Amino acid sequence: MSAQLDSWNDGAVKRAIVDFVTRVTTPNAPAFVPPADRIAVFDNDGTLWCEQPVIQLAHVLQRWEEMATQNPALRDQQPWKAAVDKDMTWFRTAITKHYGGDESDMPALAKGVLSAFAGLTTDEFAKRVAAFFKTAAHPKLKRLFRDCGYAPMVELLRFLEAHGFTNYIVSGGGRDFIRQIAGEIYGIPQERVIGSSTSIAFREQGDGGDLLMQAKLDVFDDKAVKPARIWSRIGKRPILAAGNSNGDIPMLQFANTPARPALRLLVLHDDAAREFDYVSGAEKSLALAKQYGWTVVSMKDDWTTVFA
Amino acid sequence: MSAQLDSWNDGAVKRAIVDFVTRVTTPNAPAFVPPADRIAVFDNDGTLWCEQPVIQLAHVLQRWEEMATQNPALRDQQPWKAAVDKDMTWFRTAITKHYGGDESDMPALAKGVLSAFAGLTTDEFAKRVAAFFKTAAHPKLKRLFRDCGYAPMVELLRFLEAHGFTNYIVSGGGRDFIRQIAGEIYGIPQERVIGSSTSIAFREQGDGGDLLMQAKLDVFDDKAVKPARIWSRIGKRPILAAGNSNGDIPMLQFANTPARPALRLLVLHDDAAREFDYVSGAEKSLALAKQYGWTVVSMKDDWTTVFA
Repeated sequence: MSAQLDSWNDGAVKRAIVDFVTRVTTPNAPAFVPPADRIAVFDNDGTLWCEQPVIQLAHVLQRWEEMATQNPALRDQQPWKAAVDKDMTWFRTAITKHYGGDESDMPALAKGVLSAFAGLTTDEFAKRVAAFFKTAAHPKLKRLFRDCGYAPMVELLRFLEAHGFTNYIVSGGGRDFIRQIAGEIYGIPQERVIGSSTSIAFREQGDGGDLLMQAKLDVFDDKAVKPARIWSRIGKRPILAAGNSNGDIPMLQFANTPARPALRLLVLHDDAAREFDYVSGAEKSLALAKQYGWTVVSMKDDWTTVFA
Repeated sequence: MSAQLDSWNDGAVKRAIVDFVTRVTTPNAPAFVPPADRIAVFDNDGTLWCEQPVIQLAHVLQRWEEMATQNPALRDQQPWKAAVDKDMTWFRTAITKHYGGDESDMPALAKGVLSAFAGLTTDEFAKRVAAFFKTAAHPKLKRLFRDCGYAPMVELLRFLEAHGFTNYIVSGGGRDFIRQIAGEIYGIPQERVIGSSTSIAFREQGDGGDLLMQAKLDVFDDKAVKPARIWSRIGKRPILAAGNSNGDIPMLQFANTPARPALRLLVLHDDAAREFDYVSGAEKSLALAKQYGWTVVSMKDDWTTVFA
């Protein structure tokens, strides 16, 4: 059964995954879960692909530069200023502060994010994102963003599918952004991508119409919002949840219920040689993993390779 | 190909359905649509099952009576008063006024609906609804609500599935209410039910947690909200949309785009002998059906039988 997890080193983590899948898929076993209830949810940034820097940020940065060129008044306001100055430290700090509970940079960042694509149709936005992924590359890893998915996690997705699971992405990142690439990288179709979004409004036009993006937050799919969105979209609790940061804690907790087994995975970025080495934004989740026995995945020790 | 639509009389409507499905599923034909894009969306109340009275109302009425017994101060307020007095006219009028654009009874009705189950977990609510459907019956049709699905529409769902379509419910009714019965009546799984909902909030409890229903509207999935929710959940436009009232107009418009064919169905309740005969709340949608050539399904003329 474990043969398909070739990018995973033999060890406690791989064993925990295989044992869990065996337990819930063995007919007549006490822990058996019917296929329709084998729901697995995966955070995206830092869990399925890199998050240093957050990939969606590169797409928004392009747009902010474009906006500041068209409207120079934006040049002295954050986040347009940081975008034009290529000041990545400002963004990294804002994100790290957020995961630590300090939201002081969030209003400016949110305003920038929300206004970036307001007025476009969802169809136009999809085209922009698809074009972005054709050429945009990671600044440090020197590979296309579309090649930044973690090979062992993609293997895990296939392994779970082969055992009757249905995989969903549940991301703090943009739903309509991820949808443009989730099929190619992860084999996850658009309807199984749950994520953050701006409001969209229907514009009637004769016998048709389209959806316009609004400069207004609809859902920020992070922390306690993740379990609520999982229920909203799926109507079931997951039995497997994978994340890598404090923002994933409620989702991992939600997978647990006395009625049946659950596997919670937490990806630990401890591999400076092949990816990155950091725990900032994950301190609380790592402490809870220790306290409750969640399965911590060490990129360094548990993965034979990081990228395909 | 049409053999499976046995409850549909031969005629223009059945022909329109079969012709459309043939066009979009014939390989190499100009109108061919790949299976992944064969999305069909169905309103529920009045389209897939009866809406006179709205079935969910019977469930809420039970709860309002229970609440008024526990708290007699509610006895003189709407909608608790109408519930205790079994005054169905008040509710029918409120709904009819809503579909006509008069929202004057909506605040009281909304307050009653939103507070009815506040504080329950989503798991507790699901159990209540499942119990309701075991015994609750239609007051005029004298059949269980679970037997109130329209047989020709259920046949249509199976016919579409057999041709590679994926069916969704997109209802103004309650998402978590419909989810408890959509599998049994329609063969539509929980994750493909889109509907209205109250907010739900995660309550952390040790290494687990659950979702509590809030006395606050999250989504009223009607009119222009329907296309937005379809996009939010599926990330695609439907190619087939079926409704029966003014609340379904934007959803039917959204299915139309110059890029590929679309079928829009509007169920007309013109069958006093077997179901009901009314157009209230559907006046505008019927006018648009005439203007744009949407396919109007006459219950009386197009269906050999209404219920299984």
